[in-house]
Amino acid sequence: MATDTSPRVAIGPVPDALLDSAVLRGGGLISPIDTADALIWAGSPETFPSELPASVRWVQLPSAGIEDWFDSGVIPKDTEITWTSAAGAFSASVAEHALMLLLAGVRHLPAHIEARTWRQFEFFPKIGTLRGSTVAIIGAGGIGRALIPMLAAQGADSIAVNRSGSPVPGAISTYPASRMDEIYSRADHFVIAAPATPATRHLVGRAQLAAMQPHSWVINVARGSLVDTGALVEAIESEQIGGAGLDVTDPEPLPDGHPLWDLTNAIITPHDSNPPGVRPAAFADHVSKNVTRFAKGEALAALVDPVAGY
Amino acid sequence: MATDTSPRVAIGPVPDALLDSAVLRGGGLISPIDTADALIWAGSPETFPSELPASVRWVQLPSAGIEDWFDSGVIPKDTEITWTSAAGAFSASVAEHALMLLLAGVRHLPAHIEARTWRQFEFFPKIGTLRGSTVAIIGAGGIGRALIPMLAAQGADSIAVNRSGSPVPGAISTYPASRMDEIYSRADHFVIAAPATPATRHLVGRAQLAAMQPHSWVINVARGSLVDTGALVEAIESEQIGGAGLDVTDPEPLPDGHPLWDLTNAIITPHDSNPPGVRPAAFADHVSKNVTRFAKGEALAALVDPVAGY
Repeated sequence: MATDTSPRVAIGPVPDALLDSAVLRGGGLISPIDTADALIWAGSPETFPSELPASVRWVQLPSAGIEDWFDSGVIPKDTEITWTSAAGAFSASVAEHALMLLLAGVRHLPAHIEARTWRQFEFFPKIGTLRGSTVAIIGAGGIGRALIPMLAAQGADSIAVNRSGSPVPGAISTYPASRMDEIYSRADHFVIAAPATPATRHLVGRAQLAAMQPHSWVINVARGSLVDTGALVEAIESEQIGGAGLDVTDPEPLPDGHPLWDLTNAIITPHDSNPPGVRPAAFADHVSKNVTRFAKGEALAALVDPVAGY
Repeated sequence: MATDTSPRVAIGPVPDALLDSAVLRGGGLISPIDTADALIWAGSPETFPSELPASVRWVQLPSAGIEDWFDSGVIPKDTEITWTSAAGAFSASVAEHALMLLLAGVRHLPAHIEARTWRQFEFFPKIGTLRGSTVAIIGAGGIGRALIPMLAAQGADSIAVNRSGSPVPGAISTYPASRMDEIYSRADHFVIAAPATPATRHLVGRAQLAAMQPHSWVINVARGSLVDTGALVEAIESEQIGGAGLDVTDPEPLPDGHPLWDLTNAIITPHDSNPPGVRPAAFADHVSKNVTRFAKGEALAALVDPVAGY
């Protein structure tokens, strides 16, 4: 609830009903920028104010990745303002997409959609279930943490992989990246949600695919380069694995005529797991939570480090 | 844990490792039928023993629907034995299937699977999310109760419809069948899981479809006759609703050349939401739970009423 000590929050570059109600829900007051404690910015770097009033102590940016905001000089290195990105705000949509791809794969949906006749007895033996299965989440950051309770509701266990191996809440075990090779024979399915770095290029290659099971599905919602595409095509064609659900590809966009397009057990979605239509509501939720934290003087989510540049 | 007073449970018609471990997990002892307190029957009515030893006080049958067991005389009307069916055991698989169909619909998967080129900008505006949506479950029995927590994990609210309107746990509201027409403008999506009776024939017809929204998906995992197929085809063709995911059809099997086969936004699965491959594990779970209840003298799940005949 808003009180005399509620933070005054400006919204720019234009009024936005969804963000207004997010600020109010978070316990803030809508304010003109001249007297604002905080600025919620829903526009691009190009139209960002060249100077901010001294009253502004926090700026919320609308993107998860913020390279552009550094490149364009919006965020100075010597700022006294607290900057936050939208990192994590869109994790839930990507996790929902990953669950959809995994369910569609495990339950053999692509062949169903291609069918033009009643193929019940042919499909029966090919349909699996997530219930009782184990899903490995490779790179268990925001997307992974959003996905774990969704898998739990399906009766599936999650095992997580992150750099340090420090336990991820809800996962039955967490592996450090250094012991990652152990997961390939232990899990039924694999969701890739790790950042793309030189170290994670072709993280899932021939050897990892060979260690998987004939019913295993590989879901990639991170970056195409994490999977060796040639090895993946071979593994699907030879039925070494069940299939793959790919929201990202290598190369991307996937060129016309690429063999992945014609594999029934390769589901391609053109990097649309976080589509524009679902972003405003997700960003508004993020804003609401951060306004609440700002009002209470708590640490904000998705803090930007102006010196490190991310 | 098994003790001297643990129930002795026979398994028939043949030994079954999955059921053995289910009985042990439930706190029972595996026993020959001559000295058994209970019989878990995984076979057909035809091979059921013509006489049971007097020690047997409970028989667990392997089917959810048990008309055949009455017709064949396995269950006498004047029995002193407690009979249980497998009703409810397979609800989780059907609920998982319903969630898959709903997610695939809302996130526009069928057009993705048909695509042979990168159609990101075309698909972007068509992709929705379950997060923040309201799903009406028409006929909230076992399948509906299994589905509600799955939807909750996706950030979707459930409203339930049942005969009496008595509150269904986890649903934000429950409507009696007599007030069902109110749900069509209130919910985003509709999952049909009601029994097929003369009263539920064409429950979802032209008027109900007209009250839905252009993004609404209709999922039917109950019986084909609950939906007016002709009206449904028209509603999808005219984009009056988003689409339909049908595990059951009218007529069934759906004949070759039927217009539903060619509609991108009609997903047809040939009544395979509860495929044979997932049944043994689901039945074993059900057995395990019932053995535990039997051991404690509690009421068993899926009790058969020999006099009423169901």
